[in-house]
Amino acid sequence: MRTQVAIIGAGPAGLLLAHLLHRGGVDAVVIETRSQEYVAARIRAGILESSSVDLLESVGLGERLRAEGHEHRGIYLQLPGERHHLDFVDLAGRSVWVYGQTEVQKDLVAAGTAQVFYEASQVELHSLQDRPYVTFTDSSGAAQRLDADVIAGCDGSFGPSRAAATPGERYERVYPYSWLGILADVAPSTDELIYAWHPGGFALHSMRSETVSRLYLQVPNGTDPADWPDDRIWAELATRLGHGQDGWKLTPGPVTDKSVLPMRSYVQTPMRRGRLFLAGDAAHIVPPTGAKGLNLAVADVALLSRALVALLIDGDARLADSYSDDALRRVWRCTHFSWWMTTMLHASGDPFDAQLQLSQLRWVTSSEAGATGLAENYAGLPIGF
Amino acid sequence: MRTQVAIIGAGPAGLLLAHLLHRGGVDAVVIETRSQEYVAARIRAGILESSSVDLLESVGLGERLRAEGHEHRGIYLQLPGERHHLDFVDLAGRSVWVYGQTEVQKDLVAAGTAQVFYEASQVELHSLQDRPYVTFTDSSGAAQRLDADVIAGCDGSFGPSRAAATPGERYERVYPYSWLGILADVAPSTDELIYAWHPGGFALHSMRSETVSRLYLQVPNGTDPADWPDDRIWAELATRLGHGQDGWKLTPGPVTDKSVLPMRSYVQTPMRRGRLFLAGDAAHIVPPTGAKGLNLAVADVALLSRALVALLIDGDARLADSYSDDALRRVWRCTHFSWWMTTMLHASGDPFDAQLQLSQLRWVTSSEAGATGLAENYAGLPIGF
Repeated sequence: MRTQVAIIGAGPAGLLLAHLLHRGGVDAVVIETRSQEYVAARIRAGILESSSVDLLESVGLGERLRAEGHEHRGIYLQLPGERHHLDFVDLAGRSVWVYGQTEVQKDLVAAGTAQVFYEASQVELHSLQDRPYVTFTDSSGAAQRLDADVIAGCDGSFGPSRAAATPGERYERVYPYSWLGILADVAPSTDELIYAWHPGGFALHSMRSETVSRLYLQVPNGTDPADWPDDRIWAELATRLGHGQDGWKLTPGPVTDKSVLPMRSYVQTPMRRGRLFLAGDAAHIVPPTGAKGLNLAVADVALLSRALVALLIDGDARLADSYSDDALRRVWRCTHFSWWMTTMLHASGDPFDAQLQLSQLRWVTSSEAGATGLAENYAGLPIGF
Repeated sequence: MRTQVAIIGAGPAGLLLAHLLHRGGVDAVVIETRSQEYVAARIRAGILESSSVDLLESVGLGERLRAEGHEHRGIYLQLPGERHHLDFVDLAGRSVWVYGQTEVQKDLVAAGTAQVFYEASQVELHSLQDRPYVTFTDSSGAAQRLDADVIAGCDGSFGPSRAAATPGERYERVYPYSWLGILADVAPSTDELIYAWHPGGFALHSMRSETVSRLYLQVPNGTDPADWPDDRIWAELATRLGHGQDGWKLTPGPVTDKSVLPMRSYVQTPMRRGRLFLAGDAAHIVPPTGAKGLNLAVADVALLSRALVALLIDGDARLADSYSDDALRRVWRCTHFSWWMTTMLHASGDPFDAQLQLSQLRWVTSSEAGATGLAENYAGLPIGF
């Protein structure tokens, strides 16, 4: 087989890249190790920043998002006894949308613009410096070879692209805490997300829809979800989120999913090796506190699709040559923001850290500059930043 | 002897408190273990924030400051190859003044409002819960007892007040680097301070007057100034401050003072025990990066003098009772800001930290919210904050 762009990974980064390339007149084939059902059901991010929404809408993927997603003007930042609303629209002129990654994935599949080999195995990348090709075994067990002008690595932390892109620089930070996350079949107890600092650990009240809530608790690394029966989770959420304060109530409901998420920052540079370009989690991981993971992937593929259309249609390599530097400016901004939100909100066990966090949160919630700084980063910088 | 307020320490905190109390009709006596000459010559902070200048002026201490001090609109923040000016007046409506602590000290001595026992020894605080008194040996060798309604501990990190104020909470952070500071008899090579991030370590170009420069280099803890002959210092300053970039030149000159300053954050709470009130370094230490040490002391004694006048003249204890909480709000804001400036600018040796710092500095120098956040903290919050 031959195509212009061989895309490794059929998550939102890979499928959106295929969609954008298709619109730009560039052929692509997507190779994915998992089944279509598995990829569609993966529960991941749920917040789209303003520029991600604009991009999706501009390429025909906004209809269901606008109809079924929920626009949020901002978030609540909570300290013990105080809940403050930060209005991103007032502060930074931009909103965010609650629309799960699973929904974005559905819209991309429904668009039908990507030719995907699901359940591929033994995926290997070859000859990255000149005439790249990918070999794999397809779902029927047949050996395949896909020749391409370019390979796009959209296969996350554990796919072959990241390893193939080395040597380069790797930057990593592992945080000394994880999130215990649940999905619950209950209407959210809040209209917008609540980020709660608490001496016992961070808690987040998020949501997926009018009937599905998503909630998180900071837990120690290595926590076994089996040690957290539903009652214990709801009790701890009630404590940290301030159930009973000023009449606010957290309504529990049936837990349909429970998992422990480690927290990590990772950046690999450059985001290119020869004819292989990395996008999304293949190049970088952020802790989820700033809701940046999916948005960074969207921004990467927006830049990469533009660069590849210029390269493969117009023969102009300039955007491809600057892709890594262009993408990394935003990657580092979001990596810093995610680190900042994470370290400001999670209990480290050090009493001096706790006082720094409280002073920082008080400043962010009382200073217009402080609130605007959080708002402009959370609601998102322009794709070209 | 008997007075209303026994003040321990004749540095700027103690003498300014005596001055403010005198103006409020409250008697005070100051006890200082060092000689007047030693205290006058101590080289410390050099930047007064806007509210400190306003306070000094409002109590008759602004004349020489306005005549001989230098108003700065802002600072320069430097990354390799980029020097950005942050204009605090444009961003936050406030300026800062370069006017050394030694000059403030001279003005306070010249005001003549404080009765001071210099070269006191064996200073001890007694009976803090009800009828406090201080015993000491005066410079003539005579044993003295000073009875007071209140004791004000303005005697810094190493005086007896901090120890006497315990039990309480102590918060501390020791940084893994120090500053090598010099005074040089040479006109500053810059009109306003340059804070320079450099992969080899932080550098700061400050100044005391039109003919005296003050410069600092980040060095490892335990550095011996003897390992840094003047030529080596100037060469390293030239590298880190960007000598030769865009035609900028660092002019070296005769070094008149050289010392190594450790970097520490420390806060002790509450800032009161019975009839003993702490102010300035006796209660808290900040690393010098944010230029907050002297300004925090000024803010503390402004709050404390108001509280003691209300207590001792009007018999109203409310401000005295809220003094610790009132002062600590600002102390923690400045402790956080000093920590933030310090950790943003100093090389830690961790490559991930370095990238976070660069991304943060790029955001602070390109986002109005980011720049305003730095400006409003550096130029200073209102005393009552």
